[in-house]
Amino acid sequence: MPVSALSAVPAADRSVCAPLPVLGRDVTVPVAAGGEVAYAALDYAASAPALQRVWDDVAAYAPYYGSVHRGAGYLSQLSTDLFENARRTVAGFLDCRDGDQVVFTRSTTDSLNLLATALPDGCEVFVFETEHHAALLPWRGSRVTFLDAPSSPRQAVESLERALAGRDPHGPALVCVTGASNVTGELWPVGELAAVAHAHGARIVLDAAQLAPHHAVSLRELDVDWVAFSGHKLYAPFGSGVLAGRADWLRRAEPYLAGGGASRKVTRRADGGVDVEWQEGAARHEAGSPNVIGAHAIASACKALTEAGFEALAAREQRLIRTVREGLADVPEVRFLSLFGDDAPRVGVLSFVVEGWTGSRFAAALSAEYGIGVRDGLFCAHPLVSGLLGDARAEGGCGAPESSGAVRVSFGAGTPDEHVERFVRAVRELVRHGGRAGSSPSGA
Amino acid sequence: MPVSALSAVPAADRSVCAPLPVLGRDVTVPVAAGGEVAYAALDYAASAPALQRVWDDVAAYAPYYGSVHRGAGYLSQLSTDLFENARRTVAGFLDCRDGDQVVFTRSTTDSLNLLATALPDGCEVFVFETEHHAALLPWRGSRVTFLDAPSSPRQAVESLERALAGRDPHGPALVCVTGASNVTGELWPVGELAAVAHAHGARIVLDAAQLAPHHAVSLRELDVDWVAFSGHKLYAPFGSGVLAGRADWLRRAEPYLAGGGASRKVTRRADGGVDVEWQEGAARHEAGSPNVIGAHAIASACKALTEAGFEALAAREQRLIRTVREGLADVPEVRFLSLFGDDAPRVGVLSFVVEGWTGSRFAAALSAEYGIGVRDGLFCAHPLVSGLLGDARAEGGCGAPESSGAVRVSFGAGTPDEHVERFVRAVRELVRHGGRAGSSPSGA
Repeated sequence: MPVSALSAVPAADRSVCAPLPVLGRDVTVPVAAGGEVAYAALDYAASAPALQRVWDDVAAYAPYYGSVHRGAGYLSQLSTDLFENARRTVAGFLDCRDGDQVVFTRSTTDSLNLLATALPDGCEVFVFETEHHAALLPWRGSRVTFLDAPSSPRQAVESLERALAGRDPHGPALVCVTGASNVTGELWPVGELAAVAHAHGARIVLDAAQLAPHHAVSLRELDVDWVAFSGHKLYAPFGSGVLAGRADWLRRAEPYLAGGGASRKVTRRADGGVDVEWQEGAARHEAGSPNVIGAHAIASACKALTEAGFEALAAREQRLIRTVREGLADVPEVRFLSLFGDDAPRVGVLSFVVEGWTGSRFAAALSAEYGIGVRDGLFCAHPLVSGLLGDARAEGGCGAPESSGAVRVSFGAGTPDEHVERFVRAVRELVRHGGRAGSSPSGA
Repeated sequence: MPVSALSAVPAADRSVCAPLPVLGRDVTVPVAAGGEVAYAALDYAASAPALQRVWDDVAAYAPYYGSVHRGAGYLSQLSTDLFENARRTVAGFLDCRDGDQVVFTRSTTDSLNLLATALPDGCEVFVFETEHHAALLPWRGSRVTFLDAPSSPRQAVESLERALAGRDPHGPALVCVTGASNVTGELWPVGELAAVAHAHGARIVLDAAQLAPHHAVSLRELDVDWVAFSGHKLYAPFGSGVLAGRADWLRRAEPYLAGGGASRKVTRRADGGVDVEWQEGAARHEAGSPNVIGAHAIASACKALTEAGFEALAAREQRLIRTVREGLADVPEVRFLSLFGDDAPRVGVLSFVVEGWTGSRFAAALSAEYGIGVRDGLFCAHPLVSGLLGDARAEGGCGAPESSGAVRVSFGAGTPDEHVERFVRAVRELVRHGGRAGSSPSGA
């Protein structure tokens, strides 16, 4: 992981890594003190704004939109080429191996649910309780071992090692692990976990929903079997996601959805029934007309991030993380949530609780008084957040803001320094003055 | 069905029903004779171009994009409102009953696959062999009765009546039927089929993928239990679709996808397992971050079509159908495919074979020589097209163009008269001159 190496980037050197232009950078929102301020989108971990480049590419293509794999006309041919080129771009972005498949899905959740339907009979699943529900819950019908939250990357590796050592090494098994926690932002030791999995005859899928927007992901180097991510966290919010990796289980599985595109030949039998020959490639699991705009948007984002360079993007982001941590280091009322320790390598995702505040009230104050958008609640990772909060209060909807949850601030390639600086100032002021008249929004 | 009433609209009266502006109306494509012509998108039944209004609405919203159901910030609140308003708009568009649910899916295929997972134990399914594969195939795990192709709407009703009369009336059953055939464009007697289904204690789902873009669909008046349609055929190609209808089976079913948004509360048990409380409303089947742009686009299309008026749109479309039928009536080499007869009420979808031509070669000539985009093949409805072609040649991919299939021309709210007139002229010329030098593209 390149994160630790990046701490040497000087904080003052802002010229080398300006934020990438995103939609919404000029949007202003009303604040309680009156007037409007520039909206500070600090909820990238939920959904990131679209890159301007992604939007421009979608807008340029939209008049040429046509059916994919389904038409003889010029625009259908063009759209089919665009869709299949998007697949190749994603394969390159993920550094796929020969023979790997890239399946376009609707989201990470969809990708992992697809993989869950493709597990061989009797497949055991191993997953840490700290995962996002999208990685924790899809394995219905399989025997799932939930591993306790580790307190260090090393303990995670040892815990998996122990769990896999106890299983029948001849049966199929899958490990599902996040690349970066959607709660703490902490990086997980994916390469080491993959090595342990493979040593025990298990496979591994990487939930890269939070990792891919921040770091280069190489299937080849990490030696993971599959990776899943979402367009809407990768600056491409057009309803598409990706599952990429080994073709064999996918090829043998029942088609994820039954319908056109996935079916090669359908014939009526003499007994009145119907015989179906299914496709074998990615189309097997992409029934229905492909979302070509969504796939094109993801490919555009992959290119834009690659061209900007993940090292430069990560350097900026590490500086923003330091701005938060150092800016709030002397505020004892703020407690950051962490599994691996405050200094563990992480992406730009930080969750915290504030003494004397519920998460929802604090998040509402950040919005109403400072025009800052964050998320509060349990972040669709209830067992993890419950554990980190150290109490049993963790109840309520995954999506609905919780009165008892934490606050999460998250940022990425499009975040200007001012947003994060405003956030730090806002937290300090809210803690000190209680979010009443004394706090004045700024940054307009 | 209002179709028959519309034949009185005078063909010369073009002012009352101009085509709705769509993206791509100024796109030109190269043709074999040299130069470029305006692209004639006559493949609406596969994917329709985006309405300009839909695009403008998406573009206006895009800078305000934020996470849905997941954030405390202003744009998250706005995006959540937009998403839930889209749900209400769709409910109004479909004339839903109190208590009906609108679930956003990715497509009609996805909607029907979702419903398939929500069938009660032991549910029998009844489906005509003439359906699109998306309606024919999702019922895996259920006992499916495939009904033979009827030769009239009346025969369809009688056939369903007979089939349902033989079943155990106490067990659950579902009938799945299209509103308008994706091959012949013919309208199916949905209201009568619904009455028969209900008389026998069965439920019915309407595949409105081809109907909703052309006609008002009222769940209440048709008395169907569910309806499914796709955004990309409704001038809103942003990766979303809809399943709308009765909530009870959906509420009792396992969540379609497991993940965030669908899970209300997740707790670790003392024995190491995990307990999940799932949501009960539409969110139960919408795990993962909602595709708010896709939902907003569908809502925008619903509004635009409603405001334009389906009567006026259908009147134009009926005139275009007559242009095709009358323009080719004296070309014996062209045989239209039909179940219910050439004069049966239909939407702007017509399939045909041309003596001496394979479907793929004819479609390729329309594209290369006239800049006309149609589809050829079996249209993901293999049993139907095989039957209509009257031979056993129907082989090959659903998506891939077939050498042995038919040609389909389809149009809708954005189609200018010139496109259809050019199509008629092109067919006549190709049939007469064989698509060689004699045929000159026009319409530039």
